[in-house]
Amino acid sequence: MPQRVQGSRSSPLRIGMIGGGTVGGGVYEILMGNSGNGGHQLPHLRRPCVISKICVKDLSKPRSFHLDSEVSSLVTDVNSILNDDSIELIIEVMGGTELAKTVVLEALKRGKAVITANKSLIAEHMSEIEKTLATNPKSQFAYEAAVCGGIPIVQVLQSCYAGDVIHQVMGVCNGTINYMLGKMEQGMPYEQALTEARDLGFLLEGDTTNLVEGYDVRAKIAILAKLAFGVTVSPVKSIPCRGITELSSIDFEYAKLLHCTIKLLGTAGRMSRFAQYDGALSVYVSPVMIPNDHLLASTRGNNNCVAVNSGNIGLCTYSGPGEGRFPAANSVVADIVRVANSSMTSRPAASGAFPLQSTISLDFDFTRAWYIRIPFMDSIGIIRTVGELAEDNDVSIHSILQNPILDRMEADFCLTTEECKMSQVKALCDDLEQQDFVRGPPLFLPLLWEHP
Amino acid sequence: MPQRVQGSRSSPLRIGMIGGGTVGGGVYEILMGNSGNGGHQLPHLRRPCVISKICVKDLSKPRSFHLDSEVSSLVTDVNSILNDDSIELIIEVMGGTELAKTVVLEALKRGKAVITANKSLIAEHMSEIEKTLATNPKSQFAYEAAVCGGIPIVQVLQSCYAGDVIHQVMGVCNGTINYMLGKMEQGMPYEQALTEARDLGFLLEGDTTNLVEGYDVRAKIAILAKLAFGVTVSPVKSIPCRGITELSSIDFEYAKLLHCTIKLLGTAGRMSRFAQYDGALSVYVSPVMIPNDHLLASTRGNNNCVAVNSGNIGLCTYSGPGEGRFPAANSVVADIVRVANSSMTSRPAASGAFPLQSTISLDFDFTRAWYIRIPFMDSIGIIRTVGELAEDNDVSIHSILQNPILDRMEADFCLTTEECKMSQVKALCDDLEQQDFVRGPPLFLPLLWEHP
Repeated sequence: MPQRVQGSRSSPLRIGMIGGGTVGGGVYEILMGNSGNGGHQLPHLRRPCVISKICVKDLSKPRSFHLDSEVSSLVTDVNSILNDDSIELIIEVMGGTELAKTVVLEALKRGKAVITANKSLIAEHMSEIEKTLATNPKSQFAYEAAVCGGIPIVQVLQSCYAGDVIHQVMGVCNGTINYMLGKMEQGMPYEQALTEARDLGFLLEGDTTNLVEGYDVRAKIAILAKLAFGVTVSPVKSIPCRGITELSSIDFEYAKLLHCTIKLLGTAGRMSRFAQYDGALSVYVSPVMIPNDHLLASTRGNNNCVAVNSGNIGLCTYSGPGEGRFPAANSVVADIVRVANSSMTSRPAASGAFPLQSTISLDFDFTRAWYIRIPFMDSIGIIRTVGELAEDNDVSIHSILQNPILDRMEADFCLTTEECKMSQVKALCDDLEQQDFVRGPPLFLPLLWEHP
Repeated sequence: MPQRVQGSRSSPLRIGMIGGGTVGGGVYEILMGNSGNGGHQLPHLRRPCVISKICVKDLSKPRSFHLDSEVSSLVTDVNSILNDDSIELIIEVMGGTELAKTVVLEALKRGKAVITANKSLIAEHMSEIEKTLATNPKSQFAYEAAVCGGIPIVQVLQSCYAGDVIHQVMGVCNGTINYMLGKMEQGMPYEQALTEARDLGFLLEGDTTNLVEGYDVRAKIAILAKLAFGVTVSPVKSIPCRGITELSSIDFEYAKLLHCTIKLLGTAGRMSRFAQYDGALSVYVSPVMIPNDHLLASTRGNNNCVAVNSGNIGLCTYSGPGEGRFPAANSVVADIVRVANSSMTSRPAASGAFPLQSTISLDFDFTRAWYIRIPFMDSIGIIRTVGELAEDNDVSIHSILQNPILDRMEADFCLTTEECKMSQVKALCDDLEQQDFVRGPPLFLPLLWEHP
């Protein structure tokens, strides 16, 4: 590989990769010119790169890539990489937050550059990583692959909004979930959509709970919040998070009625007063009713899409494959080139985030228009009661929708509300649940009506 | 301004701006913290910046921005900026290709950094600019604002595809045209859409011909082709270019019939053989029939959208406001921060393009499926004649569409074809035009059917 790179006389950048799985294999193939890039020789690279060591758990395990043993050797002890002074860059693609954290911090302390695709690690430990970076000026840290693999959203947030102020970041950040919601919108039951996603191999990346409960998206929006607003949300699990398990086909029917589609969104946005987005920051994960003409609504299949709303530009969206071996690996390689060319845009602030943390407070009790679906048994006086309870909670009802009732004992109707706080709509739903005519907990979802 | 920037002890980066119009004023306001960024102090900036001189034609002309005379002075002679050794960075926002070219090349020769928003200049003279850069290692060149103002497509192509190979770049690159097409799709006649765009101030940026004939998009796709493929198309006017003047309401009716929308696209893509995009490069500008479920189809109003198809990632789209004072100015400011932080990703290759030029040939006779609209007078034997002519030109017809005929003497029907070369479809249209039943030159547009 080194000798393949033209026009460079400098010594090769020696890389140690920890993890030899899907993404790691993809990185190796791209660097060796065996990927979809068709043997492309990284012409942007100003210094030859070589992955000299790859640390894996099991040497005997078959690999998804062809190892060039003249260039690279497999090892099982991370220390043989950490202690190798000839290795300037470490790529962490093993996942997890225990060993990964130790390795990343240790590598930074030794002044090495670190590239990781580990969203959980960054979401939970970015502050510690930044402290370590600050005290080790030679070290570098990059993580383009950690959020929306194929979309260069980290680079974009780090370097393209330097003169701007971001109001809101919203993302369809999990392709598997988006695929499932697309199927459910077409009438497929949740369980079947899940099975189909598993059969298609979309569920490789981890356990199902992490996915369907929205925890994966929660980690990603925590990282985007840090990049866009410089705010660390800690612990990450404090972020209000609703997955897709409570959604039913009825919600998709009402979505059609409202000319909306349902997407699982990670959202980080500042409260706006008089169109000044200078209020507290709210961060949350929830299925959202999105008008069909919103740019996010056209995110199809297992694509990802991140929408950034800012003062100077307005609304921009960045869309593409979020997962997959080569999209993610491609982002790692882009980071490798940045490190090799030392054109990192994110130093000195590792995250590249605006250092506004001290000036922005967090408030998870965010304001939105809401969709509420209420499972009920038909009876007299329901509308009056709903009206009274809404009034009690100072919630202004925008519309009451009722599909033709097929079974009077087992029906659902839905409300849409004007903008109010989550705590208000939650209180209203709690009150509703106490009523005799209500069969179970109502479901409330934000309505994306104020951002065209 | 300088003292506002925190944590930097270095001397301020002195900037000379040439042009004090819409974009220039926006840049000044952002740097002075008077823009939509709400007084935001460019925390990414590691070195204070000050626009010390602004060169304008007419000192007495009122300005769209508040000039801080303590910091900046207006001048009328570019040489007072070029000859000022204290000025390290020149921002060229005057437009035009005569004086602008002289100024840019002269500045680079003196080792200054240059940032420009001048798409015509880059499209026509990038080779010369690159030569000058190569011989003046201290110089830098950036032009994020030149293509799709609010979308960081230049930065993305320069730094995010380093490990990838791009197959095709397609762009809705002119917001005004996209706005007009949106109105025409709703039934508004061309002339009225043009008037409305003018009334809304969308036509500020130049003369109408340049816009509606697609020359503006032609310059932009030439730049994108250079970035994505390293290929310089010279002269730019050799690029096949069809504007929107020939479109009629009938085309939009047939578009609906085909579940398509019509967008003016700049396209640069490599011919594919057996899914290997390793053929010649075709570059062209034309209205295109785009399936409604294609990501480009949801580009609404005066937004821009660029779709990049690559080997590792697949299809990514970047969408947002293409024009406007602050979107464009924001891109200039992002470049300023890159220069000030010397984190330019585009050195040594000024364009940041893959140096593949020698290996990619140009072929404007591109292959596509086609839509052909034929103005005709109803008579006997038309279908047979059309079939014969299609056969003669080796064009395989996919469908023949005919809306209900209101006037037998003045009707239109349309054909869709399988993939064939532009020269074939053009020859077919020439033959058709010779027929007695054809009232005038048929219109042919590419059909975007092969890229989901």
